[in-house]
Amino acid sequence: MATQGQPITCKAAVAWEANTPLVIEDVRVAPPQAGEVRVKILFTALCHTDAYTWSGKDPEGLFPCILGHEAAGIVESVGEGVTEVQPGDHVIPCYQAECRECKFCKSGKTNLCGKVRAATGVGVMMNDRKTRFSIKGKPIYHFMGTSTFSQYTVVHDVSVAKIDPAAPLEKLYNELQEDSFVAFEVAVCDPSSVEVCCYTHLLSLGLGAVWNTAKVEAGSIVAIFGLGTIGLAVAEGAKAAGASRIIGIDIDRKKFDRAKDFGVTEFVNPKEHDEPIQQRLIDLTDGGVDYSFECIGNVSVMRAALECCHKGWGTSVIVGVAASGQEISTRPFQLVTGRVWKGTAFGGFKSRSQVPLLVDKYMKKEIKIDEYITHKLTLGEMNEAFDLLHEGSCLRCVLDMQL
Amino acid sequence: MATQGQPITCKAAVAWEANTPLVIEDVRVAPPQAGEVRVKILFTALCHTDAYTWSGKDPEGLFPCILGHEAAGIVESVGEGVTEVQPGDHVIPCYQAECRECKFCKSGKTNLCGKVRAATGVGVMMNDRKTRFSIKGKPIYHFMGTSTFSQYTVVHDVSVAKIDPAAPLEKLYNELQEDSFVAFEVAVCDPSSVEVCCYTHLLSLGLGAVWNTAKVEAGSIVAIFGLGTIGLAVAEGAKAAGASRIIGIDIDRKKFDRAKDFGVTEFVNPKEHDEPIQQRLIDLTDGGVDYSFECIGNVSVMRAALECCHKGWGTSVIVGVAASGQEISTRPFQLVTGRVWKGTAFGGFKSRSQVPLLVDKYMKKEIKIDEYITHKLTLGEMNEAFDLLHEGSCLRCVLDMQL
Repeated sequence: MATQGQPITCKAAVAWEANTPLVIEDVRVAPPQAGEVRVKILFTALCHTDAYTWSGKDPEGLFPCILGHEAAGIVESVGEGVTEVQPGDHVIPCYQAECRECKFCKSGKTNLCGKVRAATGVGVMMNDRKTRFSIKGKPIYHFMGTSTFSQYTVVHDVSVAKIDPAAPLEKLYNELQEDSFVAFEVAVCDPSSVEVCCYTHLLSLGLGAVWNTAKVEAGSIVAIFGLGTIGLAVAEGAKAAGASRIIGIDIDRKKFDRAKDFGVTEFVNPKEHDEPIQQRLIDLTDGGVDYSFECIGNVSVMRAALECCHKGWGTSVIVGVAASGQEISTRPFQLVTGRVWKGTAFGGFKSRSQVPLLVDKYMKKEIKIDEYITHKLTLGEMNEAFDLLHEGSCLRCVLDMQL
Repeated sequence: MATQGQPITCKAAVAWEANTPLVIEDVRVAPPQAGEVRVKILFTALCHTDAYTWSGKDPEGLFPCILGHEAAGIVESVGEGVTEVQPGDHVIPCYQAECRECKFCKSGKTNLCGKVRAATGVGVMMNDRKTRFSIKGKPIYHFMGTSTFSQYTVVHDVSVAKIDPAAPLEKLYNELQEDSFVAFEVAVCDPSSVEVCCYTHLLSLGLGAVWNTAKVEAGSIVAIFGLGTIGLAVAEGAKAAGASRIIGIDIDRKKFDRAKDFGVTEFVNPKEHDEPIQQRLIDLTDGGVDYSFECIGNVSVMRAALECCHKGWGTSVIVGVAASGQEISTRPFQLVTGRVWKGTAFGGFKSRSQVPLLVDKYMKKEIKIDEYITHKLTLGEMNEAFDLLHEGSCLRCVLDMQL
């Protein structure tokens, strides 16, 4: 391509400082170095993780930066030594890398690859510990190793999932409605791109929490605290796993009707009961639920989610992420009598290996996706998209980056 | 037997009230009712659980009562409907019942049978919600469904493990030294008789924590917090599981030498380091341990035990039990990044089914037992035995109940 090896100047939404509106700027994107990939971003979505860092509450947040970590695009060029993707490949940038060589990747126990974390955690690329973004010579930090709020971004090669050639984007375009395609691109990137400090609405994180972390069996009783996007995805995952009862807990009764479509069979509004919610659930289930999922990021709710689990085997998975510095607590008796407390890391999915498999599931209509997309905007409307995040009616807002 | 169907008057150590010396009394032991078994206790041991309830700190403690929950004996008579044991059988009274019929027993996920808990939790027998012990007509409460500080006790039939006839006590007597036999009887009863609020020194709880709850694999790095009896048993279990490194953590350096004999390969004394113990362990192990076990009952140590685990997969098991009302806490990030927090319930062993299998392991010399027995006394020396519990040199004190 004509641009290969050359800087590209394109539009990006830049966060110059915390808690001030993003500014659409002309950004210079340097060519990829060894082990790097430059990607043309087609669509991106917003998540509470972006909003969290933007707000200034994230102690690791760096400014100025280009936010964004959920997107899909096309490889524009690759740096030296990159063999697994090539220009033209359709890819999903993944916050969670998968190098297949480090202690984590080889453990067989986790998807938390450690290879590029030290660089992505401080907003730079591993090769030279510098950023590929600049404006008039001033460096702009990367974010989560993805920075998808730019028309072009540079990522590490271990952080892009190439979609199975048997399901090329062109084919998807032909076979699916454009609406579906947008949804597809956004949703399947979730499991690989969710950041640890995400609250969060991420679809596949929810599915992964059920399938990979909790390993819910058919016939199980499941409780889901918080019926936002992530709670709905947990419900969908639990339904697919054959759960016999899926109890949704939320203080907003309006969310209940929508949740039914995703598999929730019963609703409990803590505000309608005087007793603690964990006791209410224990009473409703003859001793407690088999699995619970906290999808809010509230440490008190995390405690309730653990304590509503059945003695002897109940397992509670923390999916939501609390604000910095907050702590969970309980009586150790809760664990000594057989309950298990876990969290889910990126839904437990391995990014490069498993994102393509999620694509297959979407192709086979095994994963509901379109239903999560409630709003569509363009790159220029980025600040409006942030405002939408805080509205209960918004599950997922997708931005067309090329408009 | 001549005593069948008749009350038996025998000696027992009675706790008339909290925190006052036990008194050796003549106690009337009523005959067993339907579903009950009367057992002649040969040997019993003391555990911190007994001391905890005796101290008055156990909010569920009832007085007057007969303490004791680790023992071995011979069935004297059985009540109506009891089919699985008969007079003359050698048995181990088990605090943790196993009815094989309740939701818990049928779950396949836990050893926490719920059948008689409602009665044993309040010091009575299930059949008539009354006690079988009395002194001059005054009822004396049962304790943990076992009350082994009496020469005769009455237990529920779901709470006695019958030792495999292929390994009769007589045979053990012939084949083993008497010292070993005593140790055997005491030790194998542990997994089934430990109460939830136990601190604790119980041998098989430690083995079960490693084998059943954590499922430690060969090559694992294990950290053990507290090198009392239970910590030593965890070490023994970890060594048997093939752990590559077994790191013992204790503030008493004197315990280190003894711990080597049980498999501990490295020692860390938190008092010798300025940094938090979890950081010290992370540094020593290139990122953290694979499994950790808290064997003290200190909630701060429980936190350290979780936080020294490796990101992505490290699992921490709470074995020690904290004092009433205390709570554990941590940042949810610890769990979200892949650590798992568990507790062990009675070592995860099913009492009636698995205690006989532990007997087999002892017969095959696969379980070290004799080394835990440091003191031997008689029923009349019960109060001295309690004093010994608080000495660092005492791992296990065994009482001959018939002397």
